[in-house]
Amino acid sequence: MLRGYSVPRTPRGHASLVPPPPWHYVGDFLVIDFWADPGAAMSVLPEGLVPHPDAGRCAAVFADWQSTSDGDEELLDPVRSHYREFYLVVSALLDGEEVTTCPFIWVDQDFALARGWIQGFPKKLGEVWMTRAYALDCRAAPGIKHGSRFAGTCSARGRQLARGQVTLTRRSDSGSAHTAPPIVNVRHFPRLAAGRHDQPQVHELVRAVSRDRAVSEIWEGEAELALFDAPGEEHTLLAPIAVERGYRFTFAYTVDDLVTVRELGA
Amino acid sequence: MLRGYSVPRTPRGHASLVPPPPWHYVGDFLVIDFWADPGAAMSVLPEGLVPHPDAGRCAAVFADWQSTSDGDEELLDPVRSHYREFYLVVSALLDGEEVTTCPFIWVDQDFALARGWIQGFPKKLGEVWMTRAYALDCRAAPGIKHGSRFAGTCSARGRQLARGQVTLTRRSDSGSAHTAPPIVNVRHFPRLAAGRHDQPQVHELVRAVSRDRAVSEIWEGEAELALFDAPGEEHTLLAPIAVERGYRFTFAYTVDDLVTVRELGA
Amino acid sequence: MLRGYSVPRTPRGHASLVPPPPWHYVGDFLVIDFWADPGAAMSVLPEGLVPHPDAGRCAAVFADWQSTSDGDEELLDPVRSHYREFYLVVSALLDGEEVTTCPFIWVDQDFALARGWIQGFPKKLGEVWMTRAYALDCRAAPGIKHGSRFAGTCSARGRQLARGQVTLTRRSDSGSAHTAPPIVNVRHFPRLAAGRHDQPQVHELVRAVSRDRAVSEIWEGEAELALFDAPGEEHTLLAPIAVERGYRFTFAYTVDDLVTVRELGA
Amino acid sequence: MLRGYSVPRTPRGHASLVPPPPWHYVGDFLVIDFWADPGAAMSVLPEGLVPHPDAGRCAAVFADWQSTSDGDEELLDPVRSHYREFYLVVSALLDGEEVTTCPFIWVDQDFALARGWIQGFPKKLGEVWMTRAYALDCRAAPGIKHGSRFAGTCSARGRQLARGQVTLTRRSDSGSAHTAPPIVNVRHFPRLAAGRHDQPQVHELVRAVSRDRAVSEIWEGEAELALFDAPGEEHTLLAPIAVERGYRFTFAYTVDDLVTVRELGA
Repeated sequence: MLRGYSVPRTPRGHASLVPPPPWHYVGDFLVIDFWADPGAAMSVLPEGLVPHPDAGRCAAVFADWQSTSDGDEELLDPVRSHYREFYLVVSALLDGEEVTTCPFIWVDQDFALARGWIQGFPKKLGEVWMTRAYALDCRAAPGIKHGSRFAGTCSARGRQLARGQVTLTRRSDSGSAHTAPPIVNVRHFPRLAAGRHDQPQVHELVRAVSRDRAVSEIWEGEAELALFDAPGEEHTLLAPIAVERGYRFTFAYTVDDLVTVRELGA
Repeated sequence: MLRGYSVPRTPRGHASLVPPPPWHYVGDFLVIDFWADPGAAMSVLPEGLVPHPDAGRCAAVFADWQSTSDGDEELLDPVRSHYREFYLVVSALLDGEEVTTCPFIWVDQDFALARGWIQGFPKKLGEVWMTRAYALDCRAAPGIKHGSRFAGTCSARGRQLARGQVTLTRRSDSGSAHTAPPIVNVRHFPRLAAGRHDQPQVHELVRAVSRDRAVSEIWEGEAELALFDAPGEEHTLLAPIAVERGYRFTFAYTVDDLVTVRELGA
Repeated sequence: MLRGYSVPRTPRGHASLVPPPPWHYVGDFLVIDFWADPGAAMSVLPEGLVPHPDAGRCAAVFADWQSTSDGDEELLDPVRSHYREFYLVVSALLDGEEVTTCPFIWVDQDFALARGWIQGFPKKLGEVWMTRAYALDCRAAPGIKHGSRFAGTCSARGRQLARGQVTLTRRSDSGSAHTAPPIVNVRHFPRLAAGRHDQPQVHELVRAVSRDRAVSEIWEGEAELALFDAPGEEHTLLAPIAVERGYRFTFAYTVDDLVTVRELGA
Repeated sequence: MLRGYSVPRTPRGHASLVPPPPWHYVGDFLVIDFWADPGAAMSVLPEGLVPHPDAGRCAAVFADWQSTSDGDEELLDPVRSHYREFYLVVSALLDGEEVTTCPFIWVDQDFALARGWIQGFPKKLGEVWMTRAYALDCRAAPGIKHGSRFAGTCSARGRQLARGQVTLTRRSDSGSAHTAPPIVNVRHFPRLAAGRHDQPQVHELVRAVSRDRAVSEIWEGEAELALFDAPGEEHTLLAPIAVERGYRFTFAYTVDDLVTVRELGA
């Protein structure tokens, strides 16, 4: 009998690209709240979500992650626990409740790409780089303090897709407007049978569930954000028309559940 | 309305990781027919397949691909058309018919990984390298002729997984025993809802369909094959107990269909 | 005693990043002859070269290489023999003789980067992709024939640096104007001793020497070329003001010599 | 006039692979003190160094670096400031003084590879992964505390080269025996002129100089270390015969000088 949470499923179940949940995460974040064209922001909402009253409210997120499943095998084989990603989220309403949704995301490891698909994040591979803080006051790293600057970049297929920068000013009371609302995405798995290419086998609106959330002190400050065109990409639909504020913090949580909100048509 | 064959689905439908079928392929192949332990080969068969009378008959395949969908946009942006992969196939019977199935496969591009999942190939990312032939008789490349040697290697996560080598002897009449039979795989997409982690949402035996197949002259010769252990991998279950013969050729086909043989239990 | 042609030098001499010469090469080439601003082209010439009468005459070259030293160990471990590179060459005169020089080049493997430094090519790492021809008439690859299109791209650090495209029209009698003249580059190795950072320890004009050159049939046709700005790059100095013609061919040679033309000042 | 500290040298001097010194560094370190076979350790010493009385004393070092030159351009374009490396150092004497030397080192970025060559580190490209600490007490990261485990891995060309692991026990008074002594390496740049392949143009024993050194609290504990054979590598000469102790800390310094100890013969 073949075993395993994801493919490849094998006799012992040890070769799955994605180990079984729960998945424990921690990451350093650079988040930039910004405004896109309201019509463009609406155009990327999946069926089932309606525009937020503040239509066009978005965030750009650079994250430097470490994750592990139970057992910690990945933490001691860090090629299986580290990854960096960049994504955009758009504010929306689900049955009157404020939520966010992620239309674009790039990540640099296969296990995280596949885990994203399972959760409804539409991940592609990309390269993400972020200025790091170190536990030492020194010339080669910004401290977590007034005036320090942190930047993030994302590219895929050799084309730059995004660049963000935050200059820390003060500790933040609120954090990003996009951290608290639940994230609602679309799980999607296509069909290849002739005549049914436009009838995905999995197509459902899903709501992320997490537990054991923890967050460090949050710092905020002025931010810059640029999104760049590239062949085979459409994220510049959400090009910033105004950039609000940036945030830097460390965040941890655990995921082992997902709620299906509704089935979507083809 | 969001459009696109795969995620991310977008207003214009141009950002899909996997463009819509048909997919046209051509690749240089190094195939090594070998024998694994019969019990081990049986242990990797999915539900619905039964052992081949010649239990343990397998092949290792190194392929250097170029693919495109209609329109040829990928051919003129070759980062979206090139990829290399390594896979193992095992002989089996489906309702009495000789077939093969692919329990292990690694590929070096995201679009090919996702396209593989859609077709039932359990792809992970890896690095694959193959000795190349060039259209010039010279010191730095083997010719397609008696005595020439071609090698392939596969690694993932910084660990070597496989190495194969073929020394060409003669033109082959038959080619590999694993080329003609249809390939039958498992399409699988997990659930994340709590309590249902072992009830995949998609779990079905599928049979590949292709058209417009073409093959170059096939050369064959003596072969070597080694599979190497690595953490989080189980492909060495199929470690060769005897290596039969190797083949080198170029192969092309088109895919835009897939047949579901049967739904599988969890 | 430590042995080896390059670092790391070791007791057995088997760990050198660059194996000892001779180095045998073969590659598929896409070459685009173009004109840059004459003043800009002059500005990148090293001391010792003077502008060509046709100032501004340049070529952009995409190459998909396989190389090996004697013994062929690399051919059977292809991760050590394959690489792709992109470079620009500028026409110039050396003591009245027509030559070319290479001010910018990117390559995707470390051994080729170091081998380039030894030869006077100012290599950085980059990603290069090229449309491939295959030995099979099929839908997924252009043939070597009228109307076929081949493209190449180069990026580094996640930024696109160059894109070229050639549409084959006819067999070429002459080939690129930049293939025949010898290439003259600068070997350079900096000092780190305080106060001497601007006094390189190696700084000399060198002239490439090769033997056993072979070339396939050459095809030519209309070409396009674009160079793109990126932080920490200056190659767009040579942005094309006119694109002349493109060429596709396979080329092989052997290198085990280099001639120092003259020592340069700091 | 062409300008720049390293190639490529250009009109504005902004394209150098290696920006001019000073170079400011900070990194998270995992250091494992171990003993290799004394004869093997002696065999990798360059001319000019003699064996340490404790012959065979070595360390393995995993480092997760961020670096920048003056101006901080790299810190805000982190693809140009981050890199990870793994290296081995061997204890030795230079004119009676205790020193270390680095016979083997792998790094994952081109600018760091070239900067290493300039300093006398015999760098090749590799992939290095290290368990990370985060500024948040959580399930997905070890804290800097008793019982926490950190691991590092290094591979190159798809083959695993090294794995180390440290379990923190206590704050360390001394740190690694290999941190304090100066490091003495060999700067080496080969010739390609026919007949002179074994007469390097640069071949000198050099002594590292640094300033503005800072170190965090150091933790120590039990350690494991394994080195793995690979084609074209010789580092397993230094395979551990006993592993002493491991250390984890953060370290920063600045480099803008290097002292030539003596010229070496070919």
